[in-house]
Amino acid sequence: MRILLTNDDGIYAEGILALYDSLCAIAEVTIVAPDSERSAVGHGITISDPLRVKEFKRNGKIVGYCSSGTPADCVKLGVNSLVEQKPDAVVSGINAGPNIGVNVLYSGTVSGAMEGALLGIPSMAVSLASWTSNDYSFAAHHTAVLVKQFLEQSLPPSTLLNVNFPPLDEQSYKGEKITFQSRVAWTDTYDQRTDPGNRRYYWLKGEANDTLHEDGSDAKAVQQGYVSITPIHCDMTDWRLYEKLKQK
Amino acid sequence: MRILLTNDDGIYAEGILALYDSLCAIAEVTIVAPDSERSAVGHGITISDPLRVKEFKRNGKIVGYCSSGTPADCVKLGVNSLVEQKPDAVVSGINAGPNIGVNVLYSGTVSGAMEGALLGIPSMAVSLASWTSNDYSFAAHHTAVLVKQFLEQSLPPSTLLNVNFPPLDEQSYKGEKITFQSRVAWTDTYDQRTDPGNRRYYWLKGEANDTLHEDGSDAKAVQQGYVSITPIHCDMTDWRLYEKLKQK
Repeated sequence: MRILLTNDDGIYAEGILALYDSLCAIAEVTIVAPDSERSAVGHGITISDPLRVKEFKRNGKIVGYCSSGTPADCVKLGVNSLVEQKPDAVVSGINAGPNIGVNVLYSGTVSGAMEGALLGIPSMAVSLASWTSNDYSFAAHHTAVLVKQFLEQSLPPSTLLNVNFPPLDEQSYKGEKITFQSRVAWTDTYDQRTDPGNRRYYWLKGEANDTLHEDGSDAKAVQQGYVSITPIHCDMTDWRLYEKLKQK
Repeated sequence: MRILLTNDDGIYAEGILALYDSLCAIAEVTIVAPDSERSAVGHGITISDPLRVKEFKRNGKIVGYCSSGTPADCVKLGVNSLVEQKPDAVVSGINAGPNIGVNVLYSGTVSGAMEGALLGIPSMAVSLASWTSNDYSFAAHHTAVLVKQFLEQSLPPSTLLNVNFPPLDEQSYKGEKITFQSRVAWTDTYDQRTDPGNRRYYWLKGEANDTLHEDGSDAKAVQQGYVSITPIHCDMTDWRLYEKLKQK
């Protein structure tokens, strides 16, 4: 099995390196990841600028590439130009922090896996759903199990799995749950500040509104100690409204 | 009616200015748009950097703001901090070029309207589905009609309309069609080049693969001369696969 591994926290982030080490036990892994953090880039790609690429070494051995692009760029460029054979799976993560609810739309981690799905490759986005924990050992180890379980089967085209791990270990997690994307929203405010040159600027300060943790959702599963697995796809059509508007 | 108007081609683009002029006939319009082109940024937002904002004048009168952020930033910041009252509608466009098929995921234009939908405001993304025409007169005029027709009714929460105009005029277009997001995909290649300093770089060269213009889709409607109206939403759950995986 050949895996292309990316993320949005950048190639030096702990999460991707922990995942690299654990995936090497089940596959031939090539990292293609951004050269620094690209959080909240959504499904951005680079079309008006060139992309730079450098080889990336781990323990003295070349194990992949870092690029000046977004996670989606890394997967597109990796599959098209950097790896010799089309990968059997794309894995993106492990992200530092949850990717649940509307965060799925903003997430660079998810967009890396989504680009894999768009290229017809079974793909998975992986996040550690905690703002404080940096213990990736269980999530890294267990992702290898999930990759074997889900990505070796075929997924429908343009579909990926969005996996969120609770900050627990092998002994204390409750199992896995197939979930849906919750409506967890953010309450945004902007700090209005003044720079040293006395010019105004704004800085986003978002807070997750966790009153909408519906039963069966990604948010609720993680809160209850389950590994949340949400199948997501690239068709954004609102089919219910489509039918309603068609009838008018 | 109060409209917040944004785009991804930047505040000086022809498309947004044509739309501003036509929307002024039906509403009080405030522009909040990027200070330069932000194409293909997807649903990116700016969290690690401050946002700069400048007032924007048209014919000597302040009509809005340009910002250093993405279209989603502009809408978030506009609604939160720049306009006095919550807008009744968010309109994003007119984009130079189609936003159909998977382009919906990459599109900054769509993401501006999607941010409006996430904030609970009826929203519409508008594109001129042509790479060569820059005649926005029909699209600008007719968008005002569609805004009155669709956005004054309530849309379901977190849903927006993605509108693509064929490059035709009032006399020659065929009418409107409610459509779904097609599977139009891109065939990507990367040009590998060498810079003046003899260092390698890559540049994306994408070509739309138009063999998948299914009947009823956004792509097909525009090709046939219709104005395509696709209801899209922010729930990316693949419900069919969700049910299937749940049953295992």
